[in-house]
Amino acid sequence: MSHPIIPVILCGGSGTRLWPASREKYPKQFLSLLSERSLLQDTARRSLRTTATTADKIITVTLGDLSQHVAGQLAALDVAAARHILCEPSARNTAAAIALAACHVEAVYGPNAIMLVLPSDHHIGNESELAKAYALGAEAAAKDYLVTFGITPTRPETGYGYIKLGNTLEGFTATHSAAAFVEKPNLPTAQSYVADGSYLWNSGMFMYRTGKVLAEYETHSPAILAAVRKAMRAGDNYKPDAATYAAIPSEPFDKAIMERSHAVAVIPVQPDWSDIGSWESLWEISQRNEQQNVVQGNAALANSTGCLVMAHSSRLIACAGLKNTVVVDTGDAVLVADRSDQDALRALVAQLKKANDPRVSELPESLIMEQLRTTE
Amino acid sequence: MSHPIIPVILCGGSGTRLWPASREKYPKQFLSLLSERSLLQDTARRSLRTTATTADKIITVTLGDLSQHVAGQLAALDVAAARHILCEPSARNTAAAIALAACHVEAVYGPNAIMLVLPSDHHIGNESELAKAYALGAEAAAKDYLVTFGITPTRPETGYGYIKLGNTLEGFTATHSAAAFVEKPNLPTAQSYVADGSYLWNSGMFMYRTGKVLAEYETHSPAILAAVRKAMRAGDNYKPDAATYAAIPSEPFDKAIMERSHAVAVIPVQPDWSDIGSWESLWEISQRNEQQNVVQGNAALANSTGCLVMAHSSRLIACAGLKNTVVVDTGDAVLVADRSDQDALRALVAQLKKANDPRVSELPESLIMEQLRTTE
Repeated sequence: MSHPIIPVILCGGSGTRLWPASREKYPKQFLSLLSERSLLQDTARRSLRTTATTADKIITVTLGDLSQHVAGQLAALDVAAARHILCEPSARNTAAAIALAACHVEAVYGPNAIMLVLPSDHHIGNESELAKAYALGAEAAAKDYLVTFGITPTRPETGYGYIKLGNTLEGFTATHSAAAFVEKPNLPTAQSYVADGSYLWNSGMFMYRTGKVLAEYETHSPAILAAVRKAMRAGDNYKPDAATYAAIPSEPFDKAIMERSHAVAVIPVQPDWSDIGSWESLWEISQRNEQQNVVQGNAALANSTGCLVMAHSSRLIACAGLKNTVVVDTGDAVLVADRSDQDALRALVAQLKKANDPRVSELPESLIMEQLRTTE
Repeated sequence: MSHPIIPVILCGGSGTRLWPASREKYPKQFLSLLSERSLLQDTARRSLRTTATTADKIITVTLGDLSQHVAGQLAALDVAAARHILCEPSARNTAAAIALAACHVEAVYGPNAIMLVLPSDHHIGNESELAKAYALGAEAAAKDYLVTFGITPTRPETGYGYIKLGNTLEGFTATHSAAAFVEKPNLPTAQSYVADGSYLWNSGMFMYRTGKVLAEYETHSPAILAAVRKAMRAGDNYKPDAATYAAIPSEPFDKAIMERSHAVAVIPVQPDWSDIGSWESLWEISQRNEQQNVVQGNAALANSTGCLVMAHSSRLIACAGLKNTVVVDTGDAVLVADRSDQDALRALVAQLKKANDPRVSELPESLIMEQLRTTE
């Protein structure tokens, strides 16, 4: 019998590059930026459509108070999808989060279950390409490869890590070894990667047999695995003990396992992928009108081009004579920003944080409810 | 005994060049743009400080429902200032409004009272210059001149009418005849006016003996005066009859009287005057910080220069990487506009008006109260 596929959705991320929509305590995976569903909800539904699995098998790994939002959003989608919500008491990076999920999957579904690890905050334009890649991934994972999916780059992006593609693996036609994992490059290096053609964006999606990835933890990062198991024993699978968990070494999964493993397989895929890392990238992947504007909600624009406008339900956003400007009204804050100037937004959020402005971390409950109702 | 001075504040103007702060039914004279008081309140207080008159003598001429705002704002300032609120049932331009006031002043204070006619929506930086000019004006008015005040231009403004200064009048040292009234010029003409030195901006402020201006109406615009008197008889001084009033010829006072009169006197004055005709001009006359930003209320700016930001009490306005941008949040609408692009703002307001958006004409009552409380 074929091994069951268990989607493991990593849902702990924070980040304020999409502030004020995204807050530390209500990060972007919960936002409905591109459809009437949130990125998390889209990820969960996509995992079902691109594999032969069922909603009851979806596992989410989330962080502290974020678990209530995960539970609410998955319940709204399908009750069974909210069965396995693993809640990290503190953020210990992806090596810990994936080890936690792996231990839980092993306990519930046995070591032969295939984990499909997915970030919760990415956009996919072409699901059928992804489904094909996952099918290849499942084959390689069944043969004890640690599979990672590399996105064919469409531009010299400096915000992503890259994977250099190695040879085709024996017995496969489109599955490769990894020649190297490389950090975020500078622009000339990124340009050379795109020209070279053998470098792919590191998507953060993985597939592996649960028993195999746990064995790789034993070999390459035994301290992390031991600490995760200890925290699970001191608490339980769903809520590991906080004090024990806080002591787990904080490392990204790529560094702790993938870069050290001798069993890595890379599957190239072009699923029209974006991590929606900024307002600029949201504008790029959104449907634009003739004036190159992206407009959501109650807004009026005159003599304006290249803008991204997200209005709040209760209030008109009116734009006159703007170029490449982002206007986002969340009800408690209105951001007006140059679309491309991410440094300025970073400086703004840092300034607000320094002033202890609660809008950096919190989204008021009433606005969460409104946002879920009205952003579509 | 010297003739009493009666300030007549024209308070019927509408206009949406300062939209969304200014609405058709809540125009800019009611807004607190530059101090904790509205432009109307500032005008009323200034009329007392620059003349020897008292608050009970202030007359306002206003339009329809606007009278409630006039009454509220003058009452907040000083109860006696709200005694004489004359309410036009429809807008018939300044010749009708001033005739209405003149008839009322004659009835209450007699023909020798000196009317000081003032727009309600201008900004004055230097009151002592103005007080000196009014003192000269009162002398000339007592000698039956129709006095107008001409502002020494500081730039080739194409948005104002101009007065060409004539010779000094006999018996006066700084009071001139008017060589000509000229319409809003194009830019080269405006530049030649500034270079010439004998052209002044037409401020819309006037002084005259009530009996004299009524006599000039009899001579130059008898139809307007007769129609105003008829409407006052059919109604009363405070509320002329609507149907009768609607039939009054609509003409500006400049055209109906000043351009035809042989008794005009012009007093040049440089009181640091502005009609605050746009967000750009509000930015220009406001106190700017080191980054050339003007910021009111709860706002945060990063890497932004030359901006005018007016935040609403309940919500943060956060700006990142902006240049010369206006952001005005009124609670029910947020304008984001290029500071200098008045055509774009005009197009925007026209577009909203065409869509019957109520925000063009109305400001919700709750927001009026909030605005009065919080804009300072």
